[in-house]
Order: sequence, then C-alpha cells, then structure tokens
Amino acid sequence: METIFNHRSIRQFSDRLPDSDVINKMLTAAVRASNTGNMQVYSIIVTTDSDLRTQLASCHFNQPASKAPLHVTFCVDVNRFSKWCRLRDAQPGYDNFLWFLCGATDALLASQNFVLEAEHNGLGICYLGTCLYNARKISEILKLPKGVIPVATIAVGYPIETPEITDRLPLEAVVHYQTYSDYSDEDINRLWHERENSDETSKLLEVNQLPNLAQIFTQKRYPEKDNVAISEELISLLKEHGFMN
Amino acid sequence: METIFNHRSIRQFSDRLPDSDVINKMLTAAVRASNTGNMQVYSIIVTTDSDLRTQLASCHFNQPASKAPLHVTFCVDVNRFSKWCRLRDAQPGYDNFLWFLCGATDALLASQNFVLEAEHNGLGICYLGTCLYNARKISEILKLPKGVIPVATIAVGYPIETPEITDRLPLEAVVHYQTYSDYSDEDINRLWHERENSDETSKLLEVNQLPNLAQIFTQKRYPEKDNVAISEELISLLKEHGFMN
Repeated sequence: METIFNHRSIRQFSDRLPDSDVINKMLTAAVRASNTGNMQVYSIIVTTDSDLRTQLASCHFNQPASKAPLHVTFCVDVNRFSKWCRLRDAQPGYDNFLWFLCGATDALLASQNFVLEAEHNGLGICYLGTCLYNARKISEILKLPKGVIPVATIAVGYPIETPEITDRLPLEAVVHYQTYSDYSDEDINRLWHERENSDETSKLLEVNQLPNLAQIFTQKRYPEKDNVAISEELISLLKEHGFMN
Repeated sequence: METIFNHRSIRQFSDRLPDSDVINKMLTAAVRASNTGNMQVYSIIVTTDSDLRTQLASCHFNQPASKAPLHVTFCVDVNRFSKWCRLRDAQPGYDNFLWFLCGATDALLASQNFVLEAEHNGLGICYLGTCLYNARKISEILKLPKGVIPVATIAVGYPIETPEITDRLPLEAVVHYQTYSDYSDEDINRLWHERENSDETSKLLEVNQLPNLAQIFTQKRYPEKDNVAISEELISLLKEHGFMN
C-alpha cells in the first residue's frame, strides 16, 4: 500500500492546523483498529492549545518535531471501562499488568492507523519516543486520572521538508521462518554490513569521535544508565496506577 | 483509507497459503513502520509448519482463528541488537523495562502495517490476544532466546466468511481535546447506550443469564482472578528476561 511504503518521519511542520473533518477521519481510522475484546481500553488526547503544547514540548526536550501544531497522545485507559463496570454493579479487574499491556496494544494499533490515515491525507507525523521518558510529567499536563498512562505521542502537521526514506536492516535480519534462528557472529556482521559502511555512518563516527556505530548507541544515544533510570520511573508510575499487580 | 475502514477480524480461513511474494510484501510493509531509534528491536516469526501451528493453536485454546494457515508472531527482541553491540565492544543496556516497552511499541506498529498490507492483498487477519496469556509456552514452541518475548500473534489466511464490521463506542467516548476530561455517570450511560440496547447485547444477556453487559465482561470473559494470574505469570517471564530492571 503506497502510504505504508512512502512513510518517513517528519520533523519540520508549517503552522497550519488540519481541518476538523480531517482530524475526525484520522480518529475514526484509529478506532477501526483491532482491540482487546472490543473494550477499547485506550484514550486519545488531541492537543492544539499553544500553552499546553509548549509544556508538552519540554517533556520531549524541545526536539524540532515537538513544535508540531498537533500533539496526539495515545494512552492506556482502564478508567473509563472500570467506571462503566462499577455503574453496572460489575467488579472491574483491570488494574493489573495484563491490562496495561492490552491497553498499550490497543492504543498502539490505533495510533498506527491514525498515522497512516494522516499521511494518506497529506499530513506528516513523527512518533516521539520520549513520551515514555517523561510519562509522569505528560500525565500531569494532560490531567490523566488513575488508570490512564500515555504510551505514544505523535507530532502531526503539514510537512515543510521532504526527507529521504530511512534505511532498514535487510528483511532477513528481523524475520524468522517456523521458529527463531539465533544469530551467529557472521550473521550479525553480514546483516549490519551495509549500514556500518554507509556514508551516513562515516559522518556520524567523525562527529562523535567513536570507533563504531554500536558505541554511538550505547554511549551517546541510549546509554544504560539513562535506560535504567527511566525504567525505574516507569515501573513506579505503573505501580501507582495499580498496573504492577 | 479504504483498507482501514473495511477492517473486520476474520476467524475462518481456507487452507490456501499466500504466495511468498505476498508474504514478503507484508513483511516489507511491517518494517517500514516507525521504530525506536531505527534500532528495530523486534523480530517477526512466520510459522506455516503444521505441527508447530497445532502446538501454537493450543496456546490460543484452539479458538477457530488459531487454525489459520499462517501464524505470525511479533516479538520484542533486544537479543539481536545486544549481540551486535557486544561484537563491537559496546556495552548494551537494553535488558530493562523501558526497552521492553520500546520493543513492544516497535513490534506492534510493525504488526499493524503487516495487517493492513495483508488486507490490501485480499487476506484476512485476526489478532489473537491470547498471545499474552501463554507467552511462555509460545516462547518455548518458537524457541525464543533470552531478550525475546512475543507480544502479538496474528492469524492470517484467505477468508471464507464475510462478517459485518464490528461496532465501536462513539468517537467522543475515546477522544479528548486539549486535556483528559473525566467521565460523569451520565457520560458513561450515554456513551454505552447504543451498545447496551442492541439486539446483540439482548442475545448475550439471554445466553449468559446475566443482568447486564458489563457483568458478562467481569464474570465471564475477563474475570479479575484470571487477569491477576496471567499478570503474575507475565511479570515473572519479564523478570527472567531481565526486563523488570
């Protein structure tokens, strides 16, 4: 499908907001995705307000994409479903880890439909992975109650740049047939060969003054110390919401 | 986008396997999805072998959709990336909760692209939520090493049924503007009104001999006792993989 194969993340947007009928089309696309038991244990928060976006952008370290005119936050939400249960004299049992994962699954499948419908309508998007880094701060800004946790932020707007499509590892790197075939050292060397020998990698190594691409990831981009600190914060946030039961 | 708006889950398939070029198109669509830092911390396992599928189907309680000719399992995978790091004298720090969530995000976005490309090519799909119920057993069958955990199973094949499109809650039930607006009792009653008063719900209440739809969810479909037991099992599986750091 053309839209899928043409996807590239957009980080520079014009100020123009999409019309409300376009926003509604994207939201309607989102809810058509499969979801657990048709319980729709997720919520979608559409933020256009300039003050709120400024606060949200700071949660994403003010990276260029966070200046988009539209922030769309996909959240696990067992609050709504549990309220319905309690109103019907039914005891909800969804404040646990399984339902955090079910809600995250629902929210993420919906988000990908939203993204494709956005791109199909001429918009550009960027997933802001930093949503997980500052989930607590984002929750406060968006006034999320107990049982609601953000799992994906999508920056949306009309593109004012046309980046190249990003490379991927060869398909054989991520696909296994029948069962998982673990990787030999030779496999790893072969699968990363093209990327490690690209012009882009050469430039990165020069800028970062490091001997190889892997060390750029482990020392600069996603070092263990940060990963562990963010993980602790996420686990404690989930505990407060009852999701670690 | 037509494919998105026409989605319905398919649970009855013919025995016909898609051609390998169609399978490759779906897999290529999958890897085009956004992913964390272009690290692709996921793997996709395509299972057609009849013995393996029989074993997998039992993990999904032999529900009709689990008899599909193709089982596609989307997994968090930090194993491959970590091996690459170690081979390059870089210390990987991805065996923690943040990277479980990053991997799950990557895997799920890829899975939704896979699904849409499948449907665009005339195939039908069903997400088997039971993947999370028996993640450990599925991991054994698929020989997943440490650092690899299944998060979504998709049953795929050519449909031999044409079900109606499933209803959803009204869009306003899941969408919030600017910040989260919590639900009053009146909101909940209004948002569920149509579903609670449908013919389908009437039939369900009669079959289940229960006073309302919410109790069908809490007592029959997803009771707290089961949710908690599965959650404990999932948390212990994640711990064994180092993902609870």
